[in-house]
Amino acid sequence: MARYVKTVDIGSSSSAYYAPATVTSQGGVIHIAGQPGTTKNGKAPDHYESQIQLALFNLRKVIIASGASVHDILKLTLYIVNYDPDRRLHTRHVQTFLAGHRPAITLVPVSQLAVKSWLFEIDAVVAKPEAKIPIIGGPTTSTKSVDVVIVGAGLAGLTAAHEVLKAGFSCVVLEARDRVGGRTYSQKLTGGETVDLGAAWINDTNQSRIFALAQKIGAELVEQNTTGDCVLQDTEGNVSTFPYGELPNFDEATKQNIAFIRDTTEADCQAVSCASPQSGANAHFDSMSFATYLRSKGATENAIKTATVWTRAMLGHEPEDISALFFLNYCKSGGGLLQMRSDRKGGGQHLRFRQGTQSLALGLARSLPEEVVQLSSAVDSIWQLGPHHAVIKTGGQAYQARKVISAVPPPVLQKVAFNPPLPTEKQILINSFFYGCYQKVLVVFKEPFWVKKGLCGLAQSFNGPIAVIRDTSVPADNKWILTCFMAGAPGRAWAQIPDAEERKRKVLQQVAQIYSEPKAQDELFLDIATWEWNNDNLSGYGCPSSSLPPGALDSVGHTLREPFGNVHFIGTETAEEWKGYMEGAIRSGERGAKEAVDELSRFVAKL
Amino acid sequence: MARYVKTVDIGSSSSAYYAPATVTSQGGVIHIAGQPGTTKNGKAPDHYESQIQLALFNLRKVIIASGASVHDILKLTLYIVNYDPDRRLHTRHVQTFLAGHRPAITLVPVSQLAVKSWLFEIDAVVAKPEAKIPIIGGPTTSTKSVDVVIVGAGLAGLTAAHEVLKAGFSCVVLEARDRVGGRTYSQKLTGGETVDLGAAWINDTNQSRIFALAQKIGAELVEQNTTGDCVLQDTEGNVSTFPYGELPNFDEATKQNIAFIRDTTEADCQAVSCASPQSGANAHFDSMSFATYLRSKGATENAIKTATVWTRAMLGHEPEDISALFFLNYCKSGGGLLQMRSDRKGGGQHLRFRQGTQSLALGLARSLPEEVVQLSSAVDSIWQLGPHHAVIKTGGQAYQARKVISAVPPPVLQKVAFNPPLPTEKQILINSFFYGCYQKVLVVFKEPFWVKKGLCGLAQSFNGPIAVIRDTSVPADNKWILTCFMAGAPGRAWAQIPDAEERKRKVLQQVAQIYSEPKAQDELFLDIATWEWNNDNLSGYGCPSSSLPPGALDSVGHTLREPFGNVHFIGTETAEEWKGYMEGAIRSGERGAKEAVDELSRFVAKL
Repeated sequence: MARYVKTVDIGSSSSAYYAPATVTSQGGVIHIAGQPGTTKNGKAPDHYESQIQLALFNLRKVIIASGASVHDILKLTLYIVNYDPDRRLHTRHVQTFLAGHRPAITLVPVSQLAVKSWLFEIDAVVAKPEAKIPIIGGPTTSTKSVDVVIVGAGLAGLTAAHEVLKAGFSCVVLEARDRVGGRTYSQKLTGGETVDLGAAWINDTNQSRIFALAQKIGAELVEQNTTGDCVLQDTEGNVSTFPYGELPNFDEATKQNIAFIRDTTEADCQAVSCASPQSGANAHFDSMSFATYLRSKGATENAIKTATVWTRAMLGHEPEDISALFFLNYCKSGGGLLQMRSDRKGGGQHLRFRQGTQSLALGLARSLPEEVVQLSSAVDSIWQLGPHHAVIKTGGQAYQARKVISAVPPPVLQKVAFNPPLPTEKQILINSFFYGCYQKVLVVFKEPFWVKKGLCGLAQSFNGPIAVIRDTSVPADNKWILTCFMAGAPGRAWAQIPDAEERKRKVLQQVAQIYSEPKAQDELFLDIATWEWNNDNLSGYGCPSSSLPPGALDSVGHTLREPFGNVHFIGTETAEEWKGYMEGAIRSGERGAKEAVDELSRFVAKL
Repeated sequence: MARYVKTVDIGSSSSAYYAPATVTSQGGVIHIAGQPGTTKNGKAPDHYESQIQLALFNLRKVIIASGASVHDILKLTLYIVNYDPDRRLHTRHVQTFLAGHRPAITLVPVSQLAVKSWLFEIDAVVAKPEAKIPIIGGPTTSTKSVDVVIVGAGLAGLTAAHEVLKAGFSCVVLEARDRVGGRTYSQKLTGGETVDLGAAWINDTNQSRIFALAQKIGAELVEQNTTGDCVLQDTEGNVSTFPYGELPNFDEATKQNIAFIRDTTEADCQAVSCASPQSGANAHFDSMSFATYLRSKGATENAIKTATVWTRAMLGHEPEDISALFFLNYCKSGGGLLQMRSDRKGGGQHLRFRQGTQSLALGLARSLPEEVVQLSSAVDSIWQLGPHHAVIKTGGQAYQARKVISAVPPPVLQKVAFNPPLPTEKQILINSFFYGCYQKVLVVFKEPFWVKKGLCGLAQSFNGPIAVIRDTSVPADNKWILTCFMAGAPGRAWAQIPDAEERKRKVLQQVAQIYSEPKAQDELFLDIATWEWNNDNLSGYGCPSSSLPPGALDSVGHTLREPFGNVHFIGTETAEEWKGYMEGAIRSGERGAKEAVDELSRFVAKL
């Protein structure tokens, strides 16, 4: 007879005399052992907040390995050494971890923990969800057979489709939305302006794939304006200007500190491997948040505020929430912090699309044979019945395929049922990806009042809710547009204002402050447009790219691009180069398609 | 689809990032977050024991809100700051809270808790009882329809019946016992003496309702004897005498302290509002026990012993267990501590009934039309199907009514199934009411030997098991009786002696000691009678009135008299004036009947 109590083990935990978790064999409740804030090598960093974040990641690992999720937690008990009631540093991290779920919690200050260096430990009781047993049969209307099923018709998936077809194999692209393009999304405003509510920028230097595609579809590109001064709005709301490419007018010591932090980040980022960031001497950067990294480098207040603008505008995150290694690797994938943030030649934000970036996906889709792209076809489950034999189910339709290429963003992939289930480490990685708050608001004006003031339009704000503004005008069309990045914590607070008019008012008010132009709020204003990515379930509630907290990359990052049987994984998060950019999406599509095509070719050769 | 993990919220708790409790949506187990000893405003009193009591009340709140009860607790974990193993102050309060239930418990001494002022915290794992779903249909033999169903044929319920009929509406009174009278209960002894095993005293001054009823039924009243000295028995068992109305012969300092405590209690009690005790400046008295109140006023040992006699003889409770505010309000309802405790004109114990107090209920019942009072009809469930439409089920019989008046004591009301369920706050209040230990032992003697010694018969004892003795003789009948109040902790210890002869021997021995009359144990003794209210399930295992621990009155006390849909609540615990007395029962019956009649009149007027 089977034992009533089953242990849950991960890694080498079965050699310990206790289990990471136990569960009754008939389901019910999972009990999770105290999880300390240690790295995968069992080392606890000296830094308290880093231990909190690692403990939460370790807890997530055990929860996922137990077949449950964070939303199944019934009770948490926090054990804290040297607890300071006036400085409750755990709350933000626990809240971020819980993502809105509200378990019962008890906090227990303790004089010490099991190991001298441990400062934080957390245990949990978790409800064991009933095993989802999707039925492979069921009311499927018909089954179609293709060589490859590609899930997701964004730039990654559509690129993969072209590659698969080019290699002589058949494929279908299943897209949950009623449109192609994924996180590229262009809309025409009433005034005739096309605006990009999602991805917008490319360059013609080191983004060879996307530039080639842009040329192929005959896209008209507009160069980003970097002539004129930039604006900095400080925490008090005061504005000052400075030449593009230079530092704002802080005192000399502050300038030196900011330059040092920028250059140190750049240097550390250059030392990271794009292909395998978690390996080598940099792994310890994954045991801390980017904020902790900054402080460890001696960042002063204004340097941290400056770096906060980086993470907000690039990922929608606060530096406190994301792994330092993840951020360094993210930057490195775009050639480094400076290049990725640059609006000039070779930079991440150099060229825009006069007709919008969704034209790329539309162009790719149009050049595919009919019926390859199936819209409104959300994949529910992926079955692997054997080598080169998968069944992909979407509503009433089933597809048989030899290979599957998933271009699904990690936060959405969590919801696809895999049978057999994804390997635990890959589940942990997918489950660890989380979006920040990120939403572009595009404001159309009668005239480029900022240009008349000698400004290039680029602005950054320490206080928000707008973190960064970029000029996205099309002078040839006489269209004058500012793109406001509502991002990070102030962006989230803004997005939660219930009244749309009030949100609009706040945006225009800040624009008027930043450019010292009161008329921006009324007589110069023409139109406003946005897309609430954080409410978009099909992107996984976010944009542009989901991020990782401390611990994940070092521990399970190696599974990022690992295929699982017949299933290959693409999408901008999986890119080695230009993560979070359209270039990364296309490169990932090429890579995933090559993996599948190579295996298919070997298979066919054996037949 | 329902979330697997459901949160339980009370008050404004949903704004916090954690929940007071979680439960799996399929039942199973409830996990309760650490509950500190804070008042409803979140303030932790400085006093450690008060925090314990408030934490336990807060735990009770969450348990009730989760749909469970204290008897469903599986595990408690206690976190204690500055724990002193030689002074385990928590045990008595946890035991009182558990009321005989025995969960697993772990005690964790900690150096601090989440908030600086917290000294005690408790969390719990609780079994979720399977939802009781009583069936409204079922094997009901027949359904009768009346305007009002009254539950309980004590003085409150029978008074309400008269009022309802007087207003022209029909009613039925459903009584679980095979007799009327509730907590009034008169028995005739073999010698022909009628003794009151329950409520006994009234007055003719400020108890207008009960006095009018007594006159109406032609009751013969006997004035309480206050001529002669009283006796005090100290902790060592030594006795001394003092004139009625004066203080015992302590040294001058002790006398002054006792007088100060008495007068302070009287003054604070006069400041409480009978109608709304929890409002106003006195609410803080609910964050402490009456014992803590006494100590905070500087009560010395003998003053505390004196006050302990008050709470024992009045409520069967120790001062440690009941809320100070509850006790002050209880006294205030009877005109104040002094008046409620007085045996003289206007006092609580001024007049007795030669034929016993149950004659009141019997008289009320006899003057009702036949079939209005239904004995042996315990109500199982109360259904509210809509405005002016309720179904009341008792065994195989169902009653349809427009209104329900419940005269059920709170501890019994806990067991009636309400559909829809009672509002959570009212459930919490009802569930918080608890009886102390209280049992009258009536001893019949051949002669009033105490009178011959110049005593009035009134005695109080610091050591017990008898807390107070009162002369309840009827000189006109040549019946000489002492009523011994076995109450509080010593009373409970006595009641738990298995052998009835041994219990009797202890009573007679203490009587002999108190009156220095050894013959009281044998040759003067005639008969003895008692009723074990603490074993009486139909009073809810207690008498005369259930009490509240710290926290309840302030937090949910406002729901005491609040109707719930068609259901109105009466009974001596709900009285504004003369709580715990027959006068309070009658006044509550009048009030509840008026509520129901007013609504019925409006309803009828609209027809």
